[in-house]
Amino acid sequence: YNGLLHPDPMGRAVAREWWKRAAATATELGAPAVGGPLGAFSVADAAEPAIAERRSSELIDDLFAACEVAAAAGLQGLLVEPTPLPREIPHSVEQSRRLMDTLRGQTAVPVAYVLDVGHALYRPLYGPKVDLVDWLAPLRDDIGVIHLQNHDFMSDAHWGWPDTRGTFQVEALAKAMRATSLDEVPVMLELFYPFELADDAVLTNITSSVQHCRAAFNP
Amino acid sequence: YNGLLHPDPMGRAVAREWWKRAAATATELGAPAVGGPLGAFSVADAAEPAIAERRSSELIDDLFAACEVAAAAGLQGLLVEPTPLPREIPHSVEQSRRLMDTLRGQTAVPVAYVLDVGHALYRPLYGPKVDLVDWLAPLRDDIGVIHLQNHDFMSDAHWGWPDTRGTFQVEALAKAMRATSLDEVPVMLELFYPFELADDAVLTNITSSVQHCRAAFNP
Repeated sequence: YNGLLHPDPMGRAVAREWWKRAAATATELGAPAVGGPLGAFSVADAAEPAIAERRSSELIDDLFAACEVAAAAGLQGLLVEPTPLPREIPHSVEQSRRLMDTLRGQTAVPVAYVLDVGHALYRPLYGPKVDLVDWLAPLRDDIGVIHLQNHDFMSDAHWGWPDTRGTFQVEALAKAMRATSLDEVPVMLELFYPFELADDAVLTNITSSVQHCRAAFNP
Repeated sequence: YNGLLHPDPMGRAVAREWWKRAAATATELGAPAVGGPLGAFSVADAAEPAIAERRSSELIDDLFAACEVAAAAGLQGLLVEPTPLPREIPHSVEQSRRLMDTLRGQTAVPVAYVLDVGHALYRPLYGPKVDLVDWLAPLRDDIGVIHLQNHDFMSDAHWGWPDTRGTFQVEALAKAMRATSLDEVPVMLELFYPFELADDAVLTNITSSVQHCRAAFNP
């Protein structure tokens, strides 16, 4: 979604309004923070360095403003989710680190990252050797929550367990979290099912996925 | 999506507003019709026959109203897309036929169906022998447009061509359309790609999909 990087000023205004409403909704729900992916350049904007630079700079302003909105709504933090798309910000470890260097200690509420194991390990963008520690170690002080899903390293699949297509090992996440002393970071299971999948099949797979993940974290 | 069958009255009001805005947008775009899936019962509503009956009845009222809105917006038709979900209306040939018997000739603009080859041939719901002619023959006078996609008969996949996972033969659609004298119905290619797929890969697959489908219709 284009979000705060929408090519049209009206689109960006809608995205700013979304963050306001999301903060209000989070407060109403009693959630301590609000968050999501920030946005995507259009193909045309991404191809124009001057425009991309201006949008990136405005995105920082929008993030500061979103933090003020979150603070005014009584929230304690803002969560930003890196995505494995070159037209989105942030989409790499380095870009995530630079963004946080700009924000850390300067915003009305602290900003932290949502690290999704399917985004972080997407080999078409990050190469065949990418490892969770490549993300967790350099961003360790800025990881607020981890999104867990089953995938095949070639798609941001959000499958559950069991799934014959998925090859992600939950034990690898548990190990990487221990190795970086991030054991206490909350892990959220984030699974997507096709609309047409029968209700019972969805519930069965969610149940077995929770059991699978619990066992992997508590062997 | 719950749409016009949303369990909450506010949700249903939002859905009615969606159809109004969609009609206005279609007019602004110069499109001759507006349409979509109608809605889905919540699990709880679907389990209560009296509630499901009342919602179904209100859905008919909402459809008449949506046709009036479409007519007022200057549109020539309203399109309804059957979906392969038991909690949605309509989701079967028989239910589609009954719905159209209620609407035909009574609405401010004519209602027609969008037949999606991935919805219609979803074997987990319709069984292993389901065939396009099972849908096209009984609904032949009410088919307004066909949605074309590649799939594996076990998911509403919306893949393109080539795709090693997909087994749908476009020739089978062309043959079924000829067999039911529906050759002149427009066919729309409806493909979904993962967010994270690279732009070039998307464009390449859309291009090869169009070529593949054209060749199948013009052997």
